[in-house]
Amino acid sequence: MKAVMEYFKKNNDAFLGDMKTFLAIPSISTSDEHKGDIIRAASFVEQQFTGMGLKNVQQYPTKGNPVVYGEWLGAIGKPTILIYGHYDVQPVEPLELWKTPPFTATIRDGKIFARGTADDKGQVFIHLKTVEAFMKTKGELPVNVKFIIEGEEEIGSTNLAEFVKKNKKLLSCDVILISDTHMQGKKMPSITYGLRGLTYLEMTVTAAKGDMHSGTFGGSVANPIQVLAEILTKCKDPKTSKVKIPGFYDDVVPLSKNERKELAKMPHDDAKYAKELGATKTFGELGYTTVERTGSRPTFEVNGIWGGHTGAGVKTVLPAQASAKVSMRLVANQDPMKIAKLFIDYVKSVTPETVKVNVKLFDNNGHPALTPIDSVGMKAAAVAIKNVYKTDPYFTREGGSIPVVADFQHLLGVEAVLLGFGLPDDNLHAPNEKLDLTQFSNGLQTVAHFFHEYATLKK
Amino acid sequence: MKAVMEYFKKNNDAFLGDMKTFLAIPSISTSDEHKGDIIRAASFVEQQFTGMGLKNVQQYPTKGNPVVYGEWLGAIGKPTILIYGHYDVQPVEPLELWKTPPFTATIRDGKIFARGTADDKGQVFIHLKTVEAFMKTKGELPVNVKFIIEGEEEIGSTNLAEFVKKNKKLLSCDVILISDTHMQGKKMPSITYGLRGLTYLEMTVTAAKGDMHSGTFGGSVANPIQVLAEILTKCKDPKTSKVKIPGFYDDVVPLSKNERKELAKMPHDDAKYAKELGATKTFGELGYTTVERTGSRPTFEVNGIWGGHTGAGVKTVLPAQASAKVSMRLVANQDPMKIAKLFIDYVKSVTPETVKVNVKLFDNNGHPALTPIDSVGMKAAAVAIKNVYKTDPYFTREGGSIPVVADFQHLLGVEAVLLGFGLPDDNLHAPNEKLDLTQFSNGLQTVAHFFHEYATLKK
Repeated sequence: MKAVMEYFKKNNDAFLGDMKTFLAIPSISTSDEHKGDIIRAASFVEQQFTGMGLKNVQQYPTKGNPVVYGEWLGAIGKPTILIYGHYDVQPVEPLELWKTPPFTATIRDGKIFARGTADDKGQVFIHLKTVEAFMKTKGELPVNVKFIIEGEEEIGSTNLAEFVKKNKKLLSCDVILISDTHMQGKKMPSITYGLRGLTYLEMTVTAAKGDMHSGTFGGSVANPIQVLAEILTKCKDPKTSKVKIPGFYDDVVPLSKNERKELAKMPHDDAKYAKELGATKTFGELGYTTVERTGSRPTFEVNGIWGGHTGAGVKTVLPAQASAKVSMRLVANQDPMKIAKLFIDYVKSVTPETVKVNVKLFDNNGHPALTPIDSVGMKAAAVAIKNVYKTDPYFTREGGSIPVVADFQHLLGVEAVLLGFGLPDDNLHAPNEKLDLTQFSNGLQTVAHFFHEYATLKK
Repeated sequence: MKAVMEYFKKNNDAFLGDMKTFLAIPSISTSDEHKGDIIRAASFVEQQFTGMGLKNVQQYPTKGNPVVYGEWLGAIGKPTILIYGHYDVQPVEPLELWKTPPFTATIRDGKIFARGTADDKGQVFIHLKTVEAFMKTKGELPVNVKFIIEGEEEIGSTNLAEFVKKNKKLLSCDVILISDTHMQGKKMPSITYGLRGLTYLEMTVTAAKGDMHSGTFGGSVANPIQVLAEILTKCKDPKTSKVKIPGFYDDVVPLSKNERKELAKMPHDDAKYAKELGATKTFGELGYTTVERTGSRPTFEVNGIWGGHTGAGVKTVLPAQASAKVSMRLVANQDPMKIAKLFIDYVKSVTPETVKVNVKLFDNNGHPALTPIDSVGMKAAAVAIKNVYKTDPYFTREGGSIPVVADFQHLLGVEAVLLGFGLPDDNLHAPNEKLDLTQFSNGLQTVAHFFHEYATLKK
């Protein structure tokens, strides 16, 4: 281990030099004009794989952007870790808010600034350079590793599930390791053990074939906005914030005593939290803390609503239609398709016969993910963190969704460890994205320890 | 009377010739580019007044477009009728949908097509030519008349109330006569005896200082769309459609037995009505018919709503704000300002402390108007109609608002008779506006009879 740690120290500048080259490629996946950059980024990853001694290195074409694969399977009898990351990045607008150009990585105050530093090129580099360090110093790793680095994460990993399905054998492993999340703080290391899933729908209430004059017709036919408001009100209890769709909570894995204890360790101040958001106070499901509400409980949220006259001034219109976009964040073991169906059935059952309702399900659905905190992967990660950060990690459940995590778990039948080294203020998807260099350095060491610990614990 | 009727017959072509000249002036008040046409139209009315023998003819300047005044007060000891109308018209877009040019009046199938035929130049002409007929054949009228023809009706009669306030003595009268509405049909003459008032507000619910990620924050703070939906649901009962704002109905003049009987005479088929609107069925306040609901009962309607992501596709946003525009149609004797205050107070009282709410009152408020069907003006109008149409008129209450009617009533303290000769399919504010020439001819005769009957009945 000592040699590996020294390799990290000695080669820090070289790592950052390579990382800057990677960060200079504007591999934005949301628009077609960067197709060439996507290819360049995939090739860069491929070269890194080859350079550090991986075998079987290959770019797998998909219907979209290629997946780059590489492996080292020389640790006979040892477990296999599948490392996932992505080489594509978010757009950079608004450009004028960047202090230094988004594709010219710049170091200041111990942080490296550029699009993709935290999400996810910089974090992918933690794994690349950890494996490189083992290979260059010892010629081998304590575990077998397989890498897949994709190029469509920022556009919903559109073709990844298909790739995983087709290549189950190639990707077979004992655990999945992902560094695409953040910790609570530099001195508050944490491991994400749960992610919420998502189902997203849009409903339209139609009362008539066209807009009507609210004077001439007002009072004689249903108002679709009013009906939509009634339907939404029937979906969530205003007092308890419980979702009122029958069966909604049926498959929810309840929080264990131990989990609630772990989650309660997280420093959190409701008043401060509300103030930072500009809210008068926090509000959520009765019987749960804010930390529990945002990570381990499902939600029902209206994401958008529109109907009638939405411009300036007055228009005395009785609208023909009104629509709303709603989404539900799900937790293990809720199934997005099942929940979507419960919602659709419920909406239809509570819609009065004075209007027609149409509900459309978007394809941005994702399963929730949950890796028990007493699983081998979690335990190995906790020890690795303690070795480096000199403190026990917090265990957290994130409110957001990374559908690919659940996809991996479902398709490969193994658990995922989300060992992210970002920080809450990394400006993901925003101007001045950065990665803290202490976190980068700690990340290298933590992943090295993780390899070692996992090999030891996983018998 | 015979001489007057013969004058109508003999001069019909001349009337239409003059009307076409009036209709050729594009006196659109909604945009400044037609200012010159507005002045030309006002001068045209002034010339007509002088030509038919009115005295004291004058254009009164206002902050906006001039009001044209003329009078004939030679009927000593007889009542005075104030005739109101407007010389301004609506815009004509979309031009391509007009079968003949909007400012080249064209007669086909017994109808005259042009912008302003029904609303209101053609109906103003009914009064001009009736007075002309009396003056040319008898040299006098059975009543005293005062005309005010304004040029801002299509932009809310912005300066008219001020003008009336300043000239109460000039405008003093026994009754106001207005022909700016329509009848139920050519063989279903009707008199409008009530108009709804209006109060129009906008409310914004704010939950946070900026939009939030629905994954990270969903479930921990209030969703402003959800809260807005709850507030709207608390404003109107989903089952009875009763407005739930305390005190809302306090000042409503209940429908009398006689009124309900009169309103019930109107042929109406709920199923046909719903089908024409494309609604599955009618819906409104429990205990009232559709005819009663649209004219004689107050309403609460959401005219517009918006918040969060309203574009295509998905965005997992927990919005910071949501807004709705709401309006209430009012009936006698509800006061728009009082009702607005009741609404604002109620909204504040039902808004949870998890959000802030802001309510803004627009200045498009109007009092309701009601002229009892047993008043002298109504009786005279009913006899006049029966004389010409050979059938009793229906008495109707219109759902829309003409704030100027209530303003007149309030400021001058007299009743208004809405004796409109338009038809429901006149295409007001739309391409191919028309006035039926039989209605024009019947209108001349009816107004002549009205003068006579009113002079007789008003002792």
